[in-house]
Amino acid sequence: MINSRYQDCVQACTRCAEACEHCATSCLREEDVKMMARCIQLDRDCADLCRLCAVLMMRDSEQAAALCRVCAEACRACASECAGHEHDHCQACAKACTACAEACERMAA
Amino acid sequence: MINSRYQDCVQACTRCAEACEHCATSCLREEDVKMMARCIQLDRDCADLCRLCAVLMMRDSEQAAALCRVCAEACRACASECAGHEHDHCQACAKACTACAEACERMAA
Amino acid sequence: MINSRYQDCVQACTRCAEACEHCATSCLREEDVKMMARCIQLDRDCADLCRLCAVLMMRDSEQAAALCRVCAEACRACASECAGHEHDHCQACAKACTACAEACERMAA
Amino acid sequence: MINSRYQDCVQACTRCAEACEHCATSCLREEDVKMMARCIQLDRDCADLCRLCAVLMMRDSEQAAALCRVCAEACRACASECAGHEHDHCQACAKACTACAEACERMAA
Repeated sequence: MINSRYQDCVQACTRCAEACEHCATSCLREEDVKMMARCIQLDRDCADLCRLCAVLMMRDSEQAAALCRVCAEACRACASECAGHEHDHCQACAKACTACAEACERMAA
Repeated sequence: MINSRYQDCVQACTRCAEACEHCATSCLREEDVKMMARCIQLDRDCADLCRLCAVLMMRDSEQAAALCRVCAEACRACASECAGHEHDHCQACAKACTACAEACERMAA
Repeated sequence: MINSRYQDCVQACTRCAEACEHCATSCLREEDVKMMARCIQLDRDCADLCRLCAVLMMRDSEQAAALCRVCAEACRACASECAGHEHDHCQACAKACTACAEACERMAA
Repeated sequence: MINSRYQDCVQACTRCAEACEHCATSCLREEDVKMMARCIQLDRDCADLCRLCAVLMMRDSEQAAALCRVCAEACRACASECAGHEHDHCQACAKACTACAEACERMAA
């Protein structure tokens, strides 16, 4: 890692992106997809933001901290939605999103 | 454009990625989301592949032609699914995917 | 476009990402690559941020405006660096970055 | 993981993308950047392909195996270039690329 202070946050973003991809794909296979529509939408945005956030931290980019702030907001929104669904993939995603939001907020501070 | 032979295909990929994003987001807002689940899934993959395909062509990457082949397959699958739905966003997406598949197949040949 | 107010900004982001990819690839082929190192680095970040910014706007994402703010900062930094180099690809990139920064700042306001 | 057979390859792709980002950023900070130009270029393509390859596997996408084949080629090219440079980041990148190429080739078979 070029800038080792980002290490934990990169890992949290990577895990969160994986949880969001898993959740979105699983939501699309649920019986009641309509109920999961907002979850799928937030998963998509959150996964994409987490991935780019991890990349900018790996590069020690000048925009890394600012992107962490946006990423944290996406994680909070996704965690809040996922927490309201009982599916295992939603519960796991809510957990990963909360952990990532906390890590990103520390970096953005 | 570094390599001008890619110009038309980059444009087709850019348009196709936009049509797929529009279609996926619109599908999530339809009354019957479940019927659109496979459409949303293919839109996601196709959009991501088209975007990276355009980027690799812009860079004149050694993997550009090989990625065009994979991108064309994703476009064909997405076009075939979208063509079966009457929504305007699906019909527009099927058209953009078919045009992109043709452009990518020319590059991969 | 789901949300038509984003139309111009999506186009500015798409053009800027293309200019940044072109500039980075061209910089890597210049005689004096060392002098272009910071340019290449900023091009990479700016291209990736512009691409995701366009995607989030296409999706009418809740994070679109916030990402526009970060994207504008990356565009300003890249424009400032590129403007200092005489290469055509740098001058074209500086122009695309400035236009994109202005479009993103309007969206973030 | 939706499809557990991809587990190891997703991890290899994630690690390889990180190694390539680290190598590219480090190369841009080396004394002799010109000597590293091809390395930076291959790192960029390989990182982007590895990231998308991991995403498509997470989604159990129909294009996952086909993208693994392209990704393996990018990894082989990057490994070959990196192996010729003595920098620690290049040696580490060559190792990650070779491991990822092997994992992707198993998936594409």
